Amino acid sequence: RQKTTAGAFLVDKGAHKHFMAKEIHEQPEVVGRTLAHYLDMATGRVRLPFETPFDWKDLDRLTISACGTAYIAGLIGKYWFERFARLPVEIDVASEFRYREAPLPRKGLALFISQSGETADTLASLRYAKENGQKILSVVNVPTSSIARESDVVAPTLAGPEIGVASTKAFTCQLTVLACLAVAAGLERGTLSEAEGLRLVTELIAAPGLIAEALKHEHAIEHVARDISKVTDVLYLGRGTSYPMALEGALKLKEISYIHAEAYAAGELKHGPIALIDETMPVIVIAPRDAIYEKTVSNMQEVAARGGRIVLISDEHAAAESGLAGLETVVMPNMGPDFAPIVYAVPVQLLAYYAAVALGKDVDQPRNLAKSVTVE
Amino acid sequence: RQKTTAGAFLVDKGAHKHFMAKEIHEQPEVVGRTLAHYLDMATGRVRLPFETPFDWKDLDRLTISACGTAYIAGLIGKYWFERFARLPVEIDVASEFRYREAPLPRKGLALFISQSGETADTLASLRYAKENGQKILSVVNVPTSSIARESDVVAPTLAGPEIGVASTKAFTCQLTVLACLAVAAGLERGTLSEAEGLRLVTELIAAPGLIAEALKHEHAIEHVARDISKVTDVLYLGRGTSYPMALEGALKLKEISYIHAEAYAAGELKHGPIALIDETMPVIVIAPRDAIYEKTVSNMQEVAARGGRIVLISDEHAAAESGLAGLETVVMPNMGPDFAPIVYAVPVQLLAYYAAVALGKDVDQPRNLAKSVTVE
Repeated sequence: RQKTTAGAFLVDKGAHKHFMAKEIHEQPEVVGRTLAHYLDMATGRVRLPFETPFDWKDLDRLTISACGTAYIAGLIGKYWFERFARLPVEIDVASEFRYREAPLPRKGLALFISQSGETADTLASLRYAKENGQKILSVVNVPTSSIARESDVVAPTLAGPEIGVASTKAFTCQLTVLACLAVAAGLERGTLSEAEGLRLVTELIAAPGLIAEALKHEHAIEHVARDISKVTDVLYLGRGTSYPMALEGALKLKEISYIHAEAYAAGELKHGPIALIDETMPVIVIAPRDAIYEKTVSNMQEVAARGGRIVLISDEHAAAESGLAGLETVVMPNMGPDFAPIVYAVPVQLLAYYAAVALGKDVDQPRNLAKSVTVE
Repeated sequence: RQKTTAGAFLVDKGAHKHFMAKEIHEQPEVVGRTLAHYLDMATGRVRLPFETPFDWKDLDRLTISACGTAYIAGLIGKYWFERFARLPVEIDVASEFRYREAPLPRKGLALFISQSGETADTLASLRYAKENGQKILSVVNVPTSSIARESDVVAPTLAGPEIGVASTKAFTCQLTVLACLAVAAGLERGTLSEAEGLRLVTELIAAPGLIAEALKHEHAIEHVARDISKVTDVLYLGRGTSYPMALEGALKLKEISYIHAEAYAAGELKHGPIALIDETMPVIVIAPRDAIYEKTVSNMQEVAARGGRIVLISDEHAAAESGLAGLETVVMPNMGPDFAPIVYAVPVQLLAYYAAVALGKDVDQPRNLAKSVTVE
């Protein structure tokens, strides 16, 4: 067994062939542990593990900055903060944010997300925000990191050490923390009623069980991934919070299988990328059955009309409801749509993992990539 | 000669093989005409051709929404409004904006961009913003369109009818209008001094001449495009306003040549897409020599270190300054960096055009695409 040290921990792969597989399977546990840190599981209420040096009610907007998968977590966080807390969110990749001289609100709050807490561009963005009078909140997995030390308040992800270069459990824990923060902000700002807050917390508490259920479809996903591994180009589509999930699916597949996967907001399909569609390019559609599911169905119809091959990631009723014949479906548990990304991360990760395995790639150490990007 | 009618106009291709080529070559003229509508060319001052039913000084932020290439124009506009007017800009593709229940500022301003003025998602976004108390400013090319009619104030692009499905001259005219609006906003808000305003207007007035100069490199660009036409996948990189230009380059190439081109903010390269880089995938880097040029150079070094082939779009001194041997360069005129996108649009358009021509594609009517997307 290959072993490696991460901080003070000694980590091994257990029964798994790769750290990435192990980390994917740890998600029910680490998401549960993270939830227990932010929620009072007995009463079903949010209980943030820190005092906030700002008042959610005083904020006009929130600035988020991060890189790579952490940026994608932030994109999903944007939807949640805007929906639950009616708090406008400005988000940018850190390498752009730090140089574009962004005008920031007086006494605003800036949020930075980084697994390692050492990402160079994110740290530089943090310092820019601090110099411009922002309070700094960071979501990090390494509490002793530079980003944690330079923050006014740290919201830890309790993912444990992540060894695989492609982030998996750190991502779902980032989502979990952002979801708890957004619900807390909504309750504080009075944009969520107590009953809505309780409902959302109940949905969050269900997430670890739903992730475990999603993991049971591993073999079916492996089967789809073997097919995907035979192509050179893939398109990922989604709407709402499933758009960032499409970005995450494409990024994961790129990172470890070197297949050229690209994501688009499904509504943008007709404004360009649909020109790429023919029989050879699979289109993977992430679409939990939410309020905009039928809009995504109409995008799938456009793809199907051009002979495109569709893989739909949704629940067991979705394919039938779409009215499209012969859809290939990756089945996810039935669940409310609010926190679907925390669960839908599983098929997205497993598709990339098994495609890379089928291609014989070095899953845990993909070419050209470092776990933590500490230079610009 | 193929002829077509657009509105009341009778349009033909003149000496060009395709409408797209004709429209690319019209840009010095139509950008000049648009500038003349927004600037007092004699005094070098901005003179908006309408009264604004809002005060730039009262705005806390600006909301922009659009689709496809118009969205990319809006992304560049965001950099300009933030830099010149210190006005925070929230921008989203219209298909996402209309469904995500975005919280909007009281008495805010929302800006919509559309060549046709009939884009369905953009029109729906406009209506959402209006219902939520926003003043509506639209940048459209068809002044009789639905979006123009439903706006409080219309900022026209004077591009004339655009026939090619892939937008070219409408895009540079949108950029021109956004640049004039951003300078006007900066002067009104007191974030630009009179001297800075004059300098920026002088740079804008130079744009048509610089576009004409860029067009002189057509044959060199055609040569590069023939090479690009032989590959299946391309990566476009840029920082700052060159990041949206990278998006535009990738979109144009996708739309008409069906080559799978994807754009990334250059700083995000190390967070995933660098895994794709090998000898087979050209990386096209858009990098006028601005304050962040050296950062982009370090990204080019990473690409070169992995055996990647780089095409650099910059001025004549850039390749030497990069210190990288054997760089293939598309030479652009020497110019200040502020409005580089208006000029750098030319090589981006010509690369896509000549790649598609080399592949024998139907440039003006690419498969699966419509000129104006009037359904969701």
